[in-house]
Amino acid sequence: MDDCIFCRIVSGDIPSDVVYRDEYVTAFRDIEPMAPAHILVVPNEHLASTDDLEERHEAAMGRLLRAASVIARQEGISDFGYRLTINTGRNANQLVPHLHLHLMGGRQFGWPPG
Amino acid sequence: MDDCIFCRIVSGDIPSDVVYRDEYVTAFRDIEPMAPAHILVVPNEHLASTDDLEERHEAAMGRLLRAASVIARQEGISDFGYRLTINTGRNANQLVPHLHLHLMGGRQFGWPPG
Repeated sequence: MDDCIFCRIVSGDIPSDVVYRDEYVTAFRDIEPMAPAHILVVPNEHLASTDDLEERHEAAMGRLLRAASVIARQEGISDFGYRLTINTGRNANQLVPHLHLHLMGGRQFGWPPG
Repeated sequence: MDDCIFCRIVSGDIPSDVVYRDEYVTAFRDIEPMAPAHILVVPNEHLASTDDLEERHEAAMGRLLRAASVIARQEGISDFGYRLTINTGRNANQLVPHLHLHLMGGRQFGWPPG
């Protein structure tokens, strides 16, 4: 999608600080970090939100979660702990309509999550 | 795992308000809800946290995310929006050492997520 900022990051059209990439997902640092480590993991294929998930997307979604754990180890935050968040829809604070998982670590997190 | 409360909920050994179940995952209402709809989705197979994810778990993890979207529709919260959260480790507020995804909806969510 030409007008999707995350599609353009995946394709390399817009530069970003990419920390992980494979056939299913791409991960890059959030430009407005809310934790010492704050990384976005997105499916390479455009998908607006989890509300659009179908059975054929499960492989990419499984990779999305495993990639987050691999990146957490890479970033040195897995032993201390981290939080994964996916916002679906504007009321949950989803600002970009391309499904993305927030991996945040390096600090403590309270409850509830927002 | 006999001493894992979520394994005992999956097996039916401990009663809970189950809202979804398939070959990979089980979902039930959180007993300390932090939103009008607050549901936990867990893999049927015991897995302590996302820190233990391996390639063979990707199918169950893909289903975990898709099941969340199916349940959100079932609960009537998908149009308004919802937040998905996975805590990994005590500092992120993971209280039960069996991987679980929090599906929360029916209200607005702030940023950052905790």
